[in-house]
Amino acid sequence: MNTKDHRSSVPYANPPWREKLKTQLDSNSMNHFVIGIIAINLVILGIQATPAGKDEGVSGLLDIANGICIGIFVIELILKGLARGSEMFKRGWDIFDIVVVAIALLASSGPASALRGLRALHLFRVISALPSLRRVVRAFLRALPGVGAIGLLMIFFLYISAVMATGFFGLIHPELFGHLGNSIYSLFQIMTLDDWSNEIVGPVMKTHPWALAFFMSFIIFGAFTILNLFIGIIVSAMQELDILDRQNSSEKKEALEVVERLERDLADLRRRLNESPGK
Amino acid sequence: MNTKDHRSSVPYANPPWREKLKTQLDSNSMNHFVIGIIAINLVILGIQATPAGKDEGVSGLLDIANGICIGIFVIELILKGLARGSEMFKRGWDIFDIVVVAIALLASSGPASALRGLRALHLFRVISALPSLRRVVRAFLRALPGVGAIGLLMIFFLYISAVMATGFFGLIHPELFGHLGNSIYSLFQIMTLDDWSNEIVGPVMKTHPWALAFFMSFIIFGAFTILNLFIGIIVSAMQELDILDRQNSSEKKEALEVVERLERDLADLRRRLNESPGK
Amino acid sequence: MNTKDHRSSVPYANPPWREKLKTQLDSNSMNHFVIGIIAINLVILGIQATPAGKDEGVSGLLDIANGICIGIFVIELILKGLARGSEMFKRGWDIFDIVVVAIALLASSGPASALRGLRALHLFRVISALPSLRRVVRAFLRALPGVGAIGLLMIFFLYISAVMATGFFGLIHPELFGHLGNSIYSLFQIMTLDDWSNEIVGPVMKTHPWALAFFMSFIIFGAFTILNLFIGIIVSAMQELDILDRQNSSEKKEALEVVERLERDLADLRRRLNESPGK
Amino acid sequence: MNTKDHRSSVPYANPPWREKLKTQLDSNSMNHFVIGIIAINLVILGIQATPAGKDEGVSGLLDIANGICIGIFVIELILKGLARGSEMFKRGWDIFDIVVVAIALLASSGPASALRGLRALHLFRVISALPSLRRVVRAFLRALPGVGAIGLLMIFFLYISAVMATGFFGLIHPELFGHLGNSIYSLFQIMTLDDWSNEIVGPVMKTHPWALAFFMSFIIFGAFTILNLFIGIIVSAMQELDILDRQNSSEKKEALEVVERLERDLADLRRRLNESPGK
Repeated sequence: MNTKDHRSSVPYANPPWREKLKTQLDSNSMNHFVIGIIAINLVILGIQATPAGKDEGVSGLLDIANGICIGIFVIELILKGLARGSEMFKRGWDIFDIVVVAIALLASSGPASALRGLRALHLFRVISALPSLRRVVRAFLRALPGVGAIGLLMIFFLYISAVMATGFFGLIHPELFGHLGNSIYSLFQIMTLDDWSNEIVGPVMKTHPWALAFFMSFIIFGAFTILNLFIGIIVSAMQELDILDRQNSSEKKEALEVVERLERDLADLRRRLNESPGK
Repeated sequence: MNTKDHRSSVPYANPPWREKLKTQLDSNSMNHFVIGIIAINLVILGIQATPAGKDEGVSGLLDIANGICIGIFVIELILKGLARGSEMFKRGWDIFDIVVVAIALLASSGPASALRGLRALHLFRVISALPSLRRVVRAFLRALPGVGAIGLLMIFFLYISAVMATGFFGLIHPELFGHLGNSIYSLFQIMTLDDWSNEIVGPVMKTHPWALAFFMSFIIFGAFTILNLFIGIIVSAMQELDILDRQNSSEKKEALEVVERLERDLADLRRRLNESPGK
Repeated sequence: MNTKDHRSSVPYANPPWREKLKTQLDSNSMNHFVIGIIAINLVILGIQATPAGKDEGVSGLLDIANGICIGIFVIELILKGLARGSEMFKRGWDIFDIVVVAIALLASSGPASALRGLRALHLFRVISALPSLRRVVRAFLRALPGVGAIGLLMIFFLYISAVMATGFFGLIHPELFGHLGNSIYSLFQIMTLDDWSNEIVGPVMKTHPWALAFFMSFIIFGAFTILNLFIGIIVSAMQELDILDRQNSSEKKEALEVVERLERDLADLRRRLNESPGK
Repeated sequence: MNTKDHRSSVPYANPPWREKLKTQLDSNSMNHFVIGIIAINLVILGIQATPAGKDEGVSGLLDIANGICIGIFVIELILKGLARGSEMFKRGWDIFDIVVVAIALLASSGPASALRGLRALHLFRVISALPSLRRVVRAFLRALPGVGAIGLLMIFFLYISAVMATGFFGLIHPELFGHLGNSIYSLFQIMTLDDWSNEIVGPVMKTHPWALAFFMSFIIFGAFTILNLFIGIIVSAMQELDILDRQNSSEKKEALEVVERLERDLADLRRRLNESPGK
């Protein structure tokens, strides 16, 4: 805290115009303006994706409107860059903004129709613009390290199982377990419990009846690990967001009040004791 | 509490007949009568939906019985309106009652067969009539603000992903991702993990092999957010309903008893100390 | 406790043979014998369900062995009845034993092949015979009242939604929503998220595009309520089984140790104070 | 702790070379070397499972590389055996290492193509090599006893239900419930809610309409028990891994600090009291 105050008050590092620009960019009205532009942009790209938006004239107009929105974002980011300099690349959300806007810009300018979908990527700026969403994402990210080992275990489990399944069933069921990619896809489908019996385990069991043992242990352990991973992240994130602790903290407060009363009593007691020998 | 007592005891605001009507409408026997009528109505509309109820004669009789039930509800609400006046529109459950009964009345009187199903909407009055159900719904509603940001994140995530998917796959798979509505439906289906591989991801991957990366991250993040949202609401609601805290509170009570004993000991100690110098 | 001691020591109520029989039936060796018979019976009926057990000779032998097992259970229950008299019908697990054995006996003696499956019902006696399983079931049953209101809400929600869906879609999709039974089945399938899009919501949406709003709110609210109900019961049952509280209780123990040390210090202090004025 | 120190310092039990070998095998650099070999092996078998790895020349080279890796593991285990002697068979992870390497060795040397998949089994050594994964697995294993009874209940429930279903539906639906194995598979599929309506319950209900009661109670109780089992293990494991307790422990720390301050105050008080009478 001290260093920050110091840095921002040193005149030769930050000329007055830079300070002023910084203050204006961080102001509430600027933030509301950006949120407003994102909201308009969300609507524009939404309309363009409806049947009405397919009309050539309408689509052209919406393209221009979208271009103006992206233009505003680019200008805002350039101004931020001028105001903050290299500092900007140390703030996660600023990097996020630069990356999504840059990708959207590239996808818009290029002719490749395959990348058309990426034009909407910069709409995710809505997360960095709204403080409440930023808080949720931050809580998720902080919860990740705590469950990192479970995630790693799941990735190794999926990978090794896929190598084994390719070896077991690859020759006879090439469409399901022909190579590593195929196998990972099939096993991921089994993990989500989507149509596993009819599409995957059923056909394989016709040629390899013992496959049931492999798949049943995979389902039990896999569904179990994935559920574990999710619940672990969720519970950690909810603690971070204080959803779980409201009740506890009120209890803690009560207990602390009692303890404080006790402390006051003790202090009073000590005061009297200090006084009494002086008599 | 004070204001309420005051308001209800002022004679010129509430004439005696109004007070009496209010007391009678809020009485236990009135409540039991309404619950009884709802129970009968639940059975009537249930029978009408069975094959036996399709018989023209039976159906006509049941229609009349249903009409009588709705009539009673209308009279009850009018009496409540007379007794409470404009106050009525400040109580959530009263507004709920008025809305569902009004919709059911409109659907019953109109000839439109499409709206026939709405005739049963007023059966949801069973929630406002039974205190235990009212308590559960209230707990859910109170839990909503705590997880509002997660819900908002999920809606933005679904919307922006749908815009992107329309751009990516819309031209080649119009039946799945042709326009915004289609895309939201398809992505919602993937979120619930229902037949995602066979119906949606499989066909798309045949033309866009790289789609796997898009869908896999969508499944992991989407299923994760929706689960998070649900568990967040549930845990909050259960805390509200005291399901989670029974055990803890008994432990807390024990701990507080010990602390109280300590406090008594300290007070006793201080009393003795107060006495001792006086000697 | 006192009454029990009293009752069992009164000679005219319980003649000596009755007391002796009771002691023997409740003995550990008797319990192990019953568990052994259940284990044998589990294996017998399991073998009879395998292809090897379909052989006529083998099946006949297994039928006889099964009959002997049931015979032993009947004798055990009769002896219990003699020892305990009418008291027996006050103990939940005894009633459970009587009901499942009686149904299995009826299903075995009758010729009806449709009821053949009920012959295995008495195997559920394994739950009442093993104390650890009895404990789990008891914990579940105790958790039920706490979530009863949520269960009631779900039943009303499913029933009223089925009545409404029959009214909305019954005429045009009689195979899905033709009558109340059909509709409840279809909506239950949607609640479990099993193939809801392809089998139910897809066909209905072709004739009633607005049905999406009905089904989406049903899925969100329905899946949500069912998950809530389950998690509520589970968390309550786990608290009952002390799975959740191991950690907490160890922390509580530590805190209590500190408090005890404090109390000892205070008592010591008071003792010295009591002594000091005497000097 | 004391015994261990003693044992390792007794010269006649462990000759110096043995001690030295032990120290070197347990060293960090040795551990990093083994993790490196496992990482290389993960990549080798992964490449072999891709289409590029099917090429005969490449596959031969990868086979040799894999053989070298397994050779290194065998040498490492032999050295460990020399260093630790019979002690080795008391450590769970060492036994795990020996078993998976032995199975992989057998599968590699044998000609049977069916066992080809088992060649990758020793890759699971990654779990015993990485401390963080070892910790997660240990937490799961410790959580098992707490939920053992629920698991047992589920196994009995599935088995007895399968015996009953074979009796009920076996003759008319031999492909679904023809014998015990079939029935367990079908009921397990219903438990995972995978396509239960279309593939299993639908066809059976056409011939046995009353089957709905059997299957609906199976789904509710089955899905419920399996969820319970999983959540029970997960919550216990997360407590073991301290994911749930971070927040609480910081609060506990605060409370303990207050209590410690109180204790110091009391000790100080007692010291003064001890001094005061001496005056």
